[in-house]
Amino acid sequence: MDAYCLDLEGILLPEIWIAVATRFKVKALRLTTRDVPDYDKLMRYRLRILKGEGIRLRDIQRVIGGLQPLPGAKQFLEKLRLEGPVILLSDTYYEFWQPVMRKLGCPVLFCNRLGTDRSGFISSYHLRQKDGKRKAVRAIQQCGFHVRAVGDSYNDLAMLKEADVGILFNPPASIRKDHPKFPVARNYQELLRLLKG
Amino acid sequence: MDAYCLDLEGILLPEIWIAVATRFKVKALRLTTRDVPDYDKLMRYRLRILKGEGIRLRDIQRVIGGLQPLPGAKQFLEKLRLEGPVILLSDTYYEFWQPVMRKLGCPVLFCNRLGTDRSGFISSYHLRQKDGKRKAVRAIQQCGFHVRAVGDSYNDLAMLKEADVGILFNPPASIRKDHPKFPVARNYQELLRLLKG
Repeated sequence: MDAYCLDLEGILLPEIWIAVATRFKVKALRLTTRDVPDYDKLMRYRLRILKGEGIRLRDIQRVIGGLQPLPGAKQFLEKLRLEGPVILLSDTYYEFWQPVMRKLGCPVLFCNRLGTDRSGFISSYHLRQKDGKRKAVRAIQQCGFHVRAVGDSYNDLAMLKEADVGILFNPPASIRKDHPKFPVARNYQELLRLLKG
Repeated sequence: MDAYCLDLEGILLPEIWIAVATRFKVKALRLTTRDVPDYDKLMRYRLRILKGEGIRLRDIQRVIGGLQPLPGAKQFLEKLRLEGPVILLSDTYYEFWQPVMRKLGCPVLFCNRLGTDRSGFISSYHLRQKDGKRKAVRAIQQCGFHVRAVGDSYNDLAMLKEADVGILFNPPASIRKDHPKFPVARNYQELLRLLKG
């Protein structure tokens, strides 16, 4: 029996920090784990910038609330959910994505939580666990499922390797080149074929 | 972070075998694990009865396709899905429930699969794993979640004990009496309050 584990940003939704950086015209928020590989360092940096710029959680939620799923994502997800359990695995935060998850039909999402201070600034972030995507794939396998996983970036590679089938969706050229053993899908039609194959 | 594990039949949907027994007027199909505690023995018995009565998988699917979720179940589930990940844990079969799951908004369901012979009779059943409900709760805990589980019958007790919080929903008097430590919800409003509490 197959279960499906999908990364969220870049697969079904646009990249959150890019959207926030664009909306508030703060170039420093465009940095990702590709630029700063240490996630803790990157997040502490982001929280400092947000506070410095006067951007509160609710400001970010307002930006995200206006975002739409990637074109075709909702229809793709509706089809996949008829095939078997679909679980979205993301390094993002529930507080960011809740309004947009409704637009995707409230799929199951395993991610993290944010804390705010009295003024409404993001003051902390609580990761569910270290190496959460890979561990979630392993846990679902231990429930007796054959796991097919989809990702697009460096923080997805451990999950793709742990899965029974790992698939790259529109990855950067560098990942594609360094990891030629993963099949690549360039659109939802190809992705659905690989997931059902 | 909380995740929610719910049994399916009796919690969100009516009991499948009761519906099939009623529709085809076959009293022998009303037996449950309360009457025959050995699940394998019960399933082999059911498959023999179905074949003897000329009832194929597609006949059962037609009955189930006409079933509706329990009154209020869809709205309850919509509210709960905004709180955190919801995973339905059932001893039933994907082939039975697929049409009705759409009516519940395609939630994630961990259950089992059936095999059919050339004439379309159910010839085999494939359990994902032994003790699947309890193991799934454990696996979700290992993903860093605090698990709140809901069930109504004997085959849910192991899952309720494994969970961080176990709740009985409209249980038979005998289970309620033998397991007084589990809080009891009698309707979705009470259940939602206990799950969010």
